[in-house]
Amino acid sequence: MSDLPKAIEICEKGPREGMQIEKGPISTARKIELIDALSDTGLQHIQTVSFVNPKRVPSMADADAVIAGITPRPGVNYSVLWLNDVGLERALKYRDRIEFREAFSLGASEPFSLRNQNRDTVANIAMQNSHLDILERNHIHMESALITAAFGCNFAGDIPIANVLATIEQAFELAAAHHFTLKRISLNDTMAWATPLTVKRMVAAVRDRWPSLRINLHFHNTRGLGVANFFAGLEMGVESYDSSVAGLGGCPFAGHRGASGNVCTEDLVFLCEELGIGTGVDLDRLIECALLAEEIVGHPLPGSVMKGGTLRRLREEVAKKNYSIA
Amino acid sequence: MSDLPKAIEICEKGPREGMQIEKGPISTARKIELIDALSDTGLQHIQTVSFVNPKRVPSMADADAVIAGITPRPGVNYSVLWLNDVGLERALKYRDRIEFREAFSLGASEPFSLRNQNRDTVANIAMQNSHLDILERNHIHMESALITAAFGCNFAGDIPIANVLATIEQAFELAAAHHFTLKRISLNDTMAWATPLTVKRMVAAVRDRWPSLRINLHFHNTRGLGVANFFAGLEMGVESYDSSVAGLGGCPFAGHRGASGNVCTEDLVFLCEELGIGTGVDLDRLIECALLAEEIVGHPLPGSVMKGGTLRRLREEVAKKNYSIA
Repeated sequence: MSDLPKAIEICEKGPREGMQIEKGPISTARKIELIDALSDTGLQHIQTVSFVNPKRVPSMADADAVIAGITPRPGVNYSVLWLNDVGLERALKYRDRIEFREAFSLGASEPFSLRNQNRDTVANIAMQNSHLDILERNHIHMESALITAAFGCNFAGDIPIANVLATIEQAFELAAAHHFTLKRISLNDTMAWATPLTVKRMVAAVRDRWPSLRINLHFHNTRGLGVANFFAGLEMGVESYDSSVAGLGGCPFAGHRGASGNVCTEDLVFLCEELGIGTGVDLDRLIECALLAEEIVGHPLPGSVMKGGTLRRLREEVAKKNYSIA
Repeated sequence: MSDLPKAIEICEKGPREGMQIEKGPISTARKIELIDALSDTGLQHIQTVSFVNPKRVPSMADADAVIAGITPRPGVNYSVLWLNDVGLERALKYRDRIEFREAFSLGASEPFSLRNQNRDTVANIAMQNSHLDILERNHIHMESALITAAFGCNFAGDIPIANVLATIEQAFELAAAHHFTLKRISLNDTMAWATPLTVKRMVAAVRDRWPSLRINLHFHNTRGLGVANFFAGLEMGVESYDSSVAGLGGCPFAGHRGASGNVCTEDLVFLCEELGIGTGVDLDRLIECALLAEEIVGHPLPGSVMKGGTLRRLREEVAKKNYSIA
């Protein structure tokens, strides 16, 4: 029916994007416990903390202690988020234990960048230039960028494909100015505007223009379309995705506080397992992490498979009981 | 990218499949209130109650009072569920206000039929024959059947497509024996085993064998794949779906009690609105019904758009504020 990828890579965003929105307080020890548990699941990429202003994001005030406290597992890449030079300089202190996965971030929607970072497009490009200068001076190998609000924006509405292509063009120019080649672009549906159809159209347009540029997709499940959008990405052959264990991370822009955040990692891994797509992740261990995350935050999280159970387990039970099919 | 249907029809199952599983008690008046509110949304089909043994399903003990108490709205079809002759005879008392939408139900998995209804395939066919006799004697116009466990079964494992095709063959034979033509088949993913890929394969196989048979799809969201499966149905051109307002209706077969039930009606309507597919449903009114359902059952329900809000509303706000796109 379709040629799905043989394997995908997942970047787990729960510890950073999830914990960031929790009112908490959540102790540093428990944050470390979750990251260390995730390190044992087979996930290859884990975003751990944001180096941001603790006055604006109090839940990330202990970011240094978290990074210093985790037990890095060989083969797992740990990344962090920064939004300005101060944050990047803080991150650089840990360059031996973190990867600088997305070297810079551009916005497909200027109203969102103004609202979220208080910077217009020109100011943001200047800021990214400054980050790239710092990274270059530190001989950090770079190859990846991300585009926020790539599918739509609560403050600008639908984002035309042409805007996203123009923004990727800017990313290529920024990379060239800093002597590296952009090899990977993350299209982030920051405010949950994507549908399976717009995912397919956007991926097709980016592929058509830059056939060898690797694409990463980042979905939020605020309106229930996260998994459908993920499957649309798979059908387009996209091999890299962001997600969040247990669906950690509410949406700060949604209508009410119970709204879901990032698409749920174990739900994606479950679907991949059913489709025969490799993820390298042990689903049972990941579900244990989801239950741990729920215990740590102290309220129900939106993941589905952590509640509904896997089909592999049911198949094993069926095989044991030797039921026959009618 | 794909030829999606211009319009679909939705059969709302929340009042029956949702209320059935609620511990309650929920008053008859509130059940009627929800059905009457749903009648004002533009939904054309609403399944209202089960006529089942009140000792086994206490929440349906007031089924007669609910049916008698609703205010039928012209153009809306109200249906009911029955599982044996006694239930069907109870339903027939209300033949002036209900439609007999699915004349009979066959199981693709014998272990499930044994577990759920304590009947093997032979006994179930005898039972369905008896129902069809009663319906025929009452001159009820029939054209539709449903297949339970069409994609997989917790007690039998994966269901081969050949089993489903053989079961549909039985449905055609039963229909012919009772002097009517089977025009519509509902494929019910009773225990949430379907993936977008198996949906596409199953629909393709049924279409290939019976090109003019209308297909209805019934999904549960127990493992988070409900909306992705729905979109797979749309991509295959399927024009008829079951769903449940606010995602009412937990899954009695899932790993733990917080598991989701039926795929959520307003999430499907939202996606259709984004795709330009007609449903006839007023999404804002439907979201009000979802919030009403949540209030009635007294605990959070799993629907997403009821929490995340619609994009149409955001587009209207953007237009008012006259933001420009960067």
